[in-house]
Amino acid sequence: MAIVVQKFGGSSVADASRMRRVAGRVAAEYDKGNQVTVIVSAMGDTTDDLIALAKQVTNSPSDREMDMFLSTGEQQSASLLAMTLGEMGYQAISLNGSQAGYHTDGRYAKAKILSIDSSRVKKELSDGKIVIITGFQGIDQNGDINTLGRGGSDTSAVAMAVALDADVCEIFTDVDGVYTADPRIVKTAQKMAEISYDEMLEMAAMGALVLQPRSVEMAKQYNIKLSVRSSFNLSEGTMVQEVAQMSKNMEQERIVCGVAHDTNVLKVTLFAVPDMPGIAGKIFVGLAKLGVNIDMIIQSGNRNDCQDLSFTCGRDDQQKVCAFVAGLVDQGLAEDSKIEDDIAKVSIVGAGMISNTGVAATMFAALAEIGCNIDMISTSEIKISCIIDEKRVKDAVLKLHSEFKLDA
Amino acid sequence: MAIVVQKFGGSSVADASRMRRVAGRVAAEYDKGNQVTVIVSAMGDTTDDLIALAKQVTNSPSDREMDMFLSTGEQQSASLLAMTLGEMGYQAISLNGSQAGYHTDGRYAKAKILSIDSSRVKKELSDGKIVIITGFQGIDQNGDINTLGRGGSDTSAVAMAVALDADVCEIFTDVDGVYTADPRIVKTAQKMAEISYDEMLEMAAMGALVLQPRSVEMAKQYNIKLSVRSSFNLSEGTMVQEVAQMSKNMEQERIVCGVAHDTNVLKVTLFAVPDMPGIAGKIFVGLAKLGVNIDMIIQSGNRNDCQDLSFTCGRDDQQKVCAFVAGLVDQGLAEDSKIEDDIAKVSIVGAGMISNTGVAATMFAALAEIGCNIDMISTSEIKISCIIDEKRVKDAVLKLHSEFKLDA
Repeated sequence: MAIVVQKFGGSSVADASRMRRVAGRVAAEYDKGNQVTVIVSAMGDTTDDLIALAKQVTNSPSDREMDMFLSTGEQQSASLLAMTLGEMGYQAISLNGSQAGYHTDGRYAKAKILSIDSSRVKKELSDGKIVIITGFQGIDQNGDINTLGRGGSDTSAVAMAVALDADVCEIFTDVDGVYTADPRIVKTAQKMAEISYDEMLEMAAMGALVLQPRSVEMAKQYNIKLSVRSSFNLSEGTMVQEVAQMSKNMEQERIVCGVAHDTNVLKVTLFAVPDMPGIAGKIFVGLAKLGVNIDMIIQSGNRNDCQDLSFTCGRDDQQKVCAFVAGLVDQGLAEDSKIEDDIAKVSIVGAGMISNTGVAATMFAALAEIGCNIDMISTSEIKISCIIDEKRVKDAVLKLHSEFKLDA
Repeated sequence: MAIVVQKFGGSSVADASRMRRVAGRVAAEYDKGNQVTVIVSAMGDTTDDLIALAKQVTNSPSDREMDMFLSTGEQQSASLLAMTLGEMGYQAISLNGSQAGYHTDGRYAKAKILSIDSSRVKKELSDGKIVIITGFQGIDQNGDINTLGRGGSDTSAVAMAVALDADVCEIFTDVDGVYTADPRIVKTAQKMAEISYDEMLEMAAMGALVLQPRSVEMAKQYNIKLSVRSSFNLSEGTMVQEVAQMSKNMEQERIVCGVAHDTNVLKVTLFAVPDMPGIAGKIFVGLAKLGVNIDMIIQSGNRNDCQDLSFTCGRDDQQKVCAFVAGLVDQGLAEDSKIEDDIAKVSIVGAGMISNTGVAATMFAALAEIGCNIDMISTSEIKISCIIDEKRVKDAVLKLHSEFKLDA
């Protein structure tokens, strides 16, 4: 008997017929003799519809009330799925965040899970029931509902897998696994049978948004095997796990496992920032306070006692960043600034890079071969990212995918 | 400073603009310097819409899952109302049944409130907040959600009024008070300024469905003043309270306070039921087990060792009752049966009847005067009900209303 946690996203449970398909999937797992716990998101566009309704009464809802309001979406889908399984003759019970024991830190709209008291879930499982749990939510020490923010349901699933010491956490989504590149761009992109946590983290952070990085981090920390697979077909999907657990062959031979790209990139350059201690700190503390998530940072080009400073972030933050940067120039902390939103990031990811030389050189040469100029470079032990012209993204992804023989 | 509990039904909060009107009403009460707690039902047709959605996945949902599912409707309206008040600059907080401390008995879909732990509500009130609470729900000792069944939100409101020792519990609805008769039938019907709990109970049970009898019973038991008023205008409404608190004049002079009628009546007659001990018990225990709510019972007409037995119930139970009655005939517990659904009940209600003779005689004579035949009669200390032909209901109500001078 295995302990299995399955997570289904909103599109997988968007209406009654999809709900029935998911129920069939859950039932099949239960029929293997496994203990099955299911985490569900709100049905289809429910969350967006609720947000639109809230906008009709206020432009600035309190986060507490929005959490109270939005958490109903998952409670509806969880109880409906339990009813659907009941209709099929299975004993299923739905539990909301409070009942399932998710204790959160009280930060409305972006809470972190502090702990899970899984006693109720374990009791229901040992009674032979299929347990359906609302994703995306928990309660704080005051008994108030907190939602977990973007990607919350993936994190709910992994956290419950940790609490139950599950054998596997299956994340069902609308793609059937993690690919060596975006299949919409690279027709020959291959589905990976397995990928390490670190590689997945880099792929996810680079724009391959199959799994939220938060949930991958937690899975890595507690060594929970994640299976990413489609809710619309029965193909095997991609297993995200520790390098040590992966098949030897792959670990040895695969230097680069995938090519990722991200067009949600904004580049900001501050010209002639005074070269004094504390200036960079002041700038990035200010951006952090605004909640701007900084990706790459490059400092370059001494001009007298000044330096040019460039950084990238998501385009959603453009308004906030523009205002902040204008303020810096007003205060004399930079002579001038430039904002670019016609750029993109292309990255190669692979755990094998650590022990193989020349990977960066191969990447840069490949990009040069197609006449693609590199604007910024950032590296980690298992990935190399380049900022390039947004217009060249497709060419670059295709070239790198074939250069590193990922079509095979 | 007064402690006020207000309850708004689903039609009062059906959309954003009505939500704003309700918020204005709540805010006005708060601005008087009062502590205001609000109980809300689900918005408009939300509950019906959810039931329709559940029907798409199952014909026999478990009560537990339906409670989990339906309770989201009130959680949505409560948080939306809190947001609406927030937009108007008021500090408001929504609490669901669990957070507001409603402890219920675990009977899904028809739970009773066992107790209320009002500490959280009191804390929020003393912090100067307006507290918005989901009607219709509580949690049992396992932490599972129970809904209170029909009329549940009125009961939620009265129970919270009891827990807070409120000065008044205002029930806002789509009519502006309790009338001496249905104003759609009697154009001269008068809105009563006040009515006793017992009279209201009789009026409610007789079909004047402004307040659910359950909530009136609880208000009577704990002596909570109930104000029934419209959410669509500012008129004063009707105060439901103890006889001793009513203005002297009214108590002394008003023998009959109102005329009620109910067309949701089914009459069942069992012919030639053996005249032996235990037969009636067997019949009515069987009906109780089916959940059939019996109103009037009449036993009459000895024929040899048999008696005819008639009773009335609601028409919703027609199917169940027909099957049960057919079974009785099959078992030889009655020779034959008759089901009538073309009848109605008309009643006069008034606390003054207890100490005034001749009220029944006046009623019967008045009905005779218009040629209206009386089929069954049932009396209590403060009401007299007659079963008549459904076609004569309007005539009877009009006649009795004028006979007892209720137009004045």
